[in-house]
Amino acid sequence: MSSTTGQIIRCKAAVAWEAGKPLVIEEVDVAPPQAMEVRLKILFTSLCHTDVYFWEAKGQTPLFPRIFGHEAGGIVESVGEGVTDLKPGDHVLPVFTGECKECRHCKSEESNMCDLLRINTDRGVMLNDGKSRFSINGQPIYHFVGTSTFSEYTVIHVGCVAKINPAAPLDKVCILSCGISTGLGATLNVAKPKKGSSVAIFGLGAVGLAAAEGARIAGAARIIGVDRNPKRFNEAKKFGVTEFVNPKDHDKPVHEVIAEMTGGGVDRSVECTGSVIAMNSAFECVHDGWGVAVLVGVPNKDDVFTTHPINILSERTLKGTFFGNYKPRSDLPSVVEKYMNKELELEKFITHEVSFSEINKAFEYMLQGDGIRCIIRMDA
Amino acid sequence: MSSTTGQIIRCKAAVAWEAGKPLVIEEVDVAPPQAMEVRLKILFTSLCHTDVYFWEAKGQTPLFPRIFGHEAGGIVESVGEGVTDLKPGDHVLPVFTGECKECRHCKSEESNMCDLLRINTDRGVMLNDGKSRFSINGQPIYHFVGTSTFSEYTVIHVGCVAKINPAAPLDKVCILSCGISTGLGATLNVAKPKKGSSVAIFGLGAVGLAAAEGARIAGAARIIGVDRNPKRFNEAKKFGVTEFVNPKDHDKPVHEVIAEMTGGGVDRSVECTGSVIAMNSAFECVHDGWGVAVLVGVPNKDDVFTTHPINILSERTLKGTFFGNYKPRSDLPSVVEKYMNKELELEKFITHEVSFSEINKAFEYMLQGDGIRCIIRMDA
Ligand SMILES: NC(=O)c1ccc[n+]([C@@H]2O[C@H](COP(=O)([O-])OP(=O)(O)OC[C@H]3O[C@@H](n4cnc5c(N)ncnc54)[C@H](O)[C@@H]3O)[C@@H](O)[C@H]2O)c1
Ligand SMILES: NC(=O)c1ccc[n+]([C@@H]2O[C@H](COP(=O)([O-])OP(=O)(O)OC[C@H]3O[C@@H](n4cnc5c(N)ncnc54)[C@H](O)[C@@H]3O)[C@@H](O)[C@H]2O)c1
Ligand SMILES: [Zn+2]
Ligand SMILES: [Zn+2]
Ligand SMILES: [Zn+2]
Ligand SMILES: [Zn+2]
Repeated sequence: MSSTTGQIIRCKAAVAWEAGKPLVIEEVDVAPPQAMEVRLKILFTSLCHTDVYFWEAKGQTPLFPRIFGHEAGGIVESVGEGVTDLKPGDHVLPVFTGECKECRHCKSEESNMCDLLRINTDRGVMLNDGKSRFSINGQPIYHFVGTSTFSEYTVIHVGCVAKINPAAPLDKVCILSCGISTGLGATLNVAKPKKGSSVAIFGLGAVGLAAAEGARIAGAARIIGVDRNPKRFNEAKKFGVTEFVNPKDHDKPVHEVIAEMTGGGVDRSVECTGSVIAMNSAFECVHDGWGVAVLVGVPNKDDVFTTHPINILSERTLKGTFFGNYKPRSDLPSVVEKYMNKELELEKFITHEVSFSEINKAFEYMLQGDGIRCIIRMDA
Repeated sequence: MSSTTGQIIRCKAAVAWEAGKPLVIEEVDVAPPQAMEVRLKILFTSLCHTDVYFWEAKGQTPLFPRIFGHEAGGIVESVGEGVTDLKPGDHVLPVFTGECKECRHCKSEESNMCDLLRINTDRGVMLNDGKSRFSINGQPIYHFVGTSTFSEYTVIHVGCVAKINPAAPLDKVCILSCGISTGLGATLNVAKPKKGSSVAIFGLGAVGLAAAEGARIAGAARIIGVDRNPKRFNEAKKFGVTEFVNPKDHDKPVHEVIAEMTGGGVDRSVECTGSVIAMNSAFECVHDGWGVAVLVGVPNKDDVFTTHPINILSERTLKGTFFGNYKPRSDLPSVVEKYMNKELELEKFITHEVSFSEINKAFEYMLQGDGIRCIIRMDA
């Protein structure tokens, strides 16, 4: 047992005091974990679009001050009452969505949308007592998606913590907490392309590139990348993308362009944009008879997906996925193993690295569309 | 070899001379089968909505005179050049869609949408020479979907003929040529409900009742029938339907009614109406995380399927099927075996029987919405 067990820990955290304003590194008090909670020492964290989106808080009910961050790697410092699966010293990845192992979803082989711990972006407090574990001079600071990894220490529900191989380098596998696993799982768990098949990936951001990496691992013969931003194409070549389509370069709809390239359509498509136009194209570009389209992107509130029913009747399949259908606790350890045995390449996703004190630089890179993932080192 | 091989056969056929006018039993000449064709003696045929739809020919380019009929059981009379799979005397079911065994669809494990022999409702002639095999005093009479079973003899492409167990009673298994297999396969091959699961069936016509029969065979614990016509509910009880929802009885959308009945949604749904409203409800009434909705109904030309993308992203699956995903030649024989070993009940679908001379009565029953299937005995 460490000397801090049961004690408040005072440490550094990057606090967002106001929407869209640079984060400020502050000394925060982190309360001990309560029942079914664990307190983690975060070693590495990375920045995802979702952090930026809720930090900008455009058109949202703002919830500030808040500690963002949900992609990270850390070590268990102490555990609360009832926690039996984890102990101090375990290497873990926190995840924004959880696995209680008790609800209908957790018990279903197919779903990872846990009733108890499914992502909640509005709740800034812990489930156990409806309170925050972070404070500055007694003023509570809100949590974010149950993880708040932009802090040297954080408290998380045990159901949102995946225990991984302690030999895995946390500065690499930390990016498996969110977007990379989402894209990878969308292809490997949901689209399931066969060896030698053709796959179209819509959107070549971090999620889409991870979906392409999944297609490469599955042995797809053709991986067609679709993006409206031609800057994305150069990077995408490293991810096994073999052909590119920019919708802006064509007069006809993208699904027709792809049908012509492939003799009727691709075997699989994965949409990673959040645009309903791309969702529609991703569905209509798969081959009739056997094509499967998988939607990953998060749409706007009032968006509507439309298609002529005949596109469905001609034996196409449309599926959606959340976090690549991975159950965080049950499945993430095996994704880490894929990296350990060199099946999955993670280094190419990591384009930047900054020290914790420079965390606002990571926000700038992302806002400029520069690179894919920026690792933030907590000890520097 | 029978004495008629290579000869024109003069026999009785029910000819539709004009859209919507009663059929007339005529003496027709049936030419011998050409390359890759077979000539069948039809023993039993039954009437399906699709016959009535093209006979009414509302809003269509009419193609008359024509011999309708596509659900039937018969015996091979003679075969054309190159036919090796069938010989005179074989018991067979003709099918409106075919299986060439050579194209990408036929070679795919998943698709039954043969490039060469996929249903074509506009073509009234044979593929081989673009001509009809039927004539009256030299005037050609058009074929219908390659089958034209309202005739004592008919000529069909070998790819549209399924050879079945000669012990199977043709007056029962003839109904497996179209609607019954479509509904049954939609559930068994595409929706694939697990034992003990819940299934909603939209539309309780012949296709929907066959989908319900599939759910019963699969061991579904709850089969919820949805129809706007309450008359359908009594019949549906024989098909294992356990609960009924009439959309007209509720103020709220059907998918909400079903979500309340089932704690969040059914495990599977099968839409057999052709209405886009029902297609939408069928999709939205399946449970998030694992629900699968299967569309079977043929929509109107300008219909649009719409849903909020979040319904897809929350891990629902939408699929369409054509002829229940059965490959006619490869798979229909095993459906016949399901009947032979008493797994599948067919008798309850057969509500009427008429002699060939009374074929217009079968049209009247269907137009009045009376019963499910009417068998037409060719020898009476
Ligand atoms: N379902 C989940 O569990 C989950 C998890 C993480 C992220 N996401 C979502 O995945 C999506 C992608 O995330 P990201 O971080 O890679 O985003 P990103 O912004 O880095 O990448 C999106 C890419 O899509 C391209 N794009 C936009 N509209 C397009 C169109 N109509 N056609 C072609 N390309 C288009 C953009 O140019 C961009 O390159 C987002 O919607 C995000 O919210 C979902
Ligand atoms: N995909 C295929 O291969 C294939 C093959 C055969 C038939 N079909 C199609 O299957 C559908 C059903 O065929 P059928 O012969 O059973 O038709 P049917 O007319 O006998 O039955 C349809 C039923 O749906 C009900 N209905 C209509 N709109 C509804 C709504 N909004 N909500 C609830 N119920 C509604 C009707 O009251 C009717 O009872 C048709 O569209 C037909 O074209 C498809
Ligand atoms: Zn759960
Ligand atoms: Zn994320
Ligand atoms: Zn074929
Ligand atoms: Zn039919």
